[in-house]
Amino acid sequence: MIFNKHLSNITVYEAGKPIELVVRDFGIDKKDIVKMASNENPFGMSKKVSKLISENSAKASLYPDDSMFELKDALSKRFNVDNDEVIIGAGSDQILEFISRAILNSETKVLMNKVTFAMYSIYAKQMDSNIITTNSIHHDLDQFLEIYKREQPEIIFICTPNNPTGDVITKDNLYNFLEKIDKNTLVVVDGAYMEYAKYKNPDTEIKPHQLIEKFPNTIYLGTFSKAFGLGGMRIGYGIGKKEIVDNLYKVRPPFNITTLSLLSGIEALKDMQFVENTVNINFTEMKRFESFLNDLGFDYIDSFTNFITIFLHENSYNSSTISNDLLRNGIIIRDLKGYGLNAIRVTVGKPEENSKFFKIFKNILL
Amino acid sequence: MIFNKHLSNITVYEAGKPIELVVRDFGIDKKDIVKMASNENPFGMSKKVSKLISENSAKASLYPDDSMFELKDALSKRFNVDNDEVIIGAGSDQILEFISRAILNSETKVLMNKVTFAMYSIYAKQMDSNIITTNSIHHDLDQFLEIYKREQPEIIFICTPNNPTGDVITKDNLYNFLEKIDKNTLVVVDGAYMEYAKYKNPDTEIKPHQLIEKFPNTIYLGTFSKAFGLGGMRIGYGIGKKEIVDNLYKVRPPFNITTLSLLSGIEALKDMQFVENTVNINFTEMKRFESFLNDLGFDYIDSFTNFITIFLHENSYNSSTISNDLLRNGIIIRDLKGYGLNAIRVTVGKPEENSKFFKIFKNILL
Repeated sequence: MIFNKHLSNITVYEAGKPIELVVRDFGIDKKDIVKMASNENPFGMSKKVSKLISENSAKASLYPDDSMFELKDALSKRFNVDNDEVIIGAGSDQILEFISRAILNSETKVLMNKVTFAMYSIYAKQMDSNIITTNSIHHDLDQFLEIYKREQPEIIFICTPNNPTGDVITKDNLYNFLEKIDKNTLVVVDGAYMEYAKYKNPDTEIKPHQLIEKFPNTIYLGTFSKAFGLGGMRIGYGIGKKEIVDNLYKVRPPFNITTLSLLSGIEALKDMQFVENTVNINFTEMKRFESFLNDLGFDYIDSFTNFITIFLHENSYNSSTISNDLLRNGIIIRDLKGYGLNAIRVTVGKPEENSKFFKIFKNILL
Repeated sequence: MIFNKHLSNITVYEAGKPIELVVRDFGIDKKDIVKMASNENPFGMSKKVSKLISENSAKASLYPDDSMFELKDALSKRFNVDNDEVIIGAGSDQILEFISRAILNSETKVLMNKVTFAMYSIYAKQMDSNIITTNSIHHDLDQFLEIYKREQPEIIFICTPNNPTGDVITKDNLYNFLEKIDKNTLVVVDGAYMEYAKYKNPDTEIKPHQLIEKFPNTIYLGTFSKAFGLGGMRIGYGIGKKEIVDNLYKVRPPFNITTLSLLSGIEALKDMQFVENTVNINFTEMKRFESFLNDLGFDYIDSFTNFITIFLHENSYNSSTISNDLLRNGIIIRDLKGYGLNAIRVTVGKPEENSKFFKIFKNILL
């Protein structure tokens, strides 16, 4: 049997370690484990959503409404766009997959930041596309532009705020950049953490409606996995002009989110107070991280998200060693060695979880 | 923006109509609608599973264990295969997608029955592969073999029992066929309705372990969407030799089933009594369908599944008209016009639902 040749270059995405694995591998009691690895909302989801799931569990025997009429309608109202400018995915991750399937092949190029969400390049590799990256940790839009002019990529990925670094681009800077990009290039604006960024600094908010009206060659991605606290339900969305969305629909599998995911997404949009409250606590706790790290003399990236990226002193600490030491103590964080950084990414948890992190991290350094 | 050329040929999969749509479009009260269109288990899911979902709804804020250790372990024990011979998908549908992504390209060929599950050809088209079909409604394995020898396709799809027709191939006939297929061709054995077929006639049971040991160039597909009653949770699986499974993993997106789907699958496998009971009722009710149709003088296909395919008299009735008439009366079934048949596919429901179908169907014919 012959498998497509270019698949041999693919490394499988390494997910943040689940609690179950730490229980299995380290024999630590489940209640003693703190997961700060996957940027979930530490306060879980809106109680209204979990109640709705509990009350409707039996509905999961029926396939979902594949038109996703209600969820698309709720999103289009929230973002002031047309229903046919919205497509739903199993996480915004799946919208990335649709985009790659619809546009890429071995003769295409994609441009992305040096350090950014791993799935951009993984899906591009699955399509045998050529991957071009900048050489800076932060999105350097001048450099993006320079490479764009030279290479004329089919897709540019902009992640704002960026994962796994937490920094952000202002709306004005993004729009200035987009003015210079030709209509033939699709610019993907991944706003997975936008609910956090716009709270911290309104100048960073990218409004999907305005974005796609001004720049019809863009698509905005959002998710229910982060601020909405529905990571395990796999719900994300893409917002773009109809021509783009129609083409993505051609590679969408039927029933691509579950029946309960569909209900959850609709309900979650009715409780924006939950998002507001938890985003607010996130930045209060972020301040504690900042003063903790300042006291220790560690560098970190000013974060517009619910995680913080901490640089380790090159000669004193190795991020993989530190990550393993934390793991043995029941704290799961993300080692960024695979991204070429001697750094760790830590999800901001509940106050008591953060205190535990501070204590154990300090102990490990000694 | 340029989209991949071959996508222009793709028709989007038409899902069975959801209850929500009939409520919206026909203004019929939800409680008066009977859905017999998507072959869900009319008795829903095991009560143990719905209870587990209700009790664990809040867990859906965390990403699932992406290793799917427990579910894979439960499946490998059930089927007596190794853990690394199992891959989980968002429905067995997604395993079909992985297979197409991993093997197909514009220089490949796939062979399938004339009338069979629509996603085989849809995913093949997404990969710009060449689709070859037999010319018979039932799987004619002699014809499959003849075309195989001439065309040397990379993949052969065998759906047993077949959807949307309900007929089946015996194990002996399938094995005789597989003996003649070279190792370079992958044979996909889709057993989505196997729990029904093996109950009606044990000679039709394909055991994944035996299948892949005897024929390492095969992959068996199973699902939780039908007999297990978890259609809305999107859980399916593929069982094949490690080399095949490893290659499919390369195109699997992370977190491809939800946290609650993972829990549901594990729990569902603990309650095989639910499956036994409902499969048993299914065939009691199937007998009622058969005598109803015999009385009316309608032809149908002897079914090894939870649905029945009814042929309409060519000159008297049009399947699309009948389907619409049923819909207006709150009964959702599947028109098979799109498959080239003047026929309808009806999911066997609960006793009272079937009685309602009999009554309305008869009324419509008058």
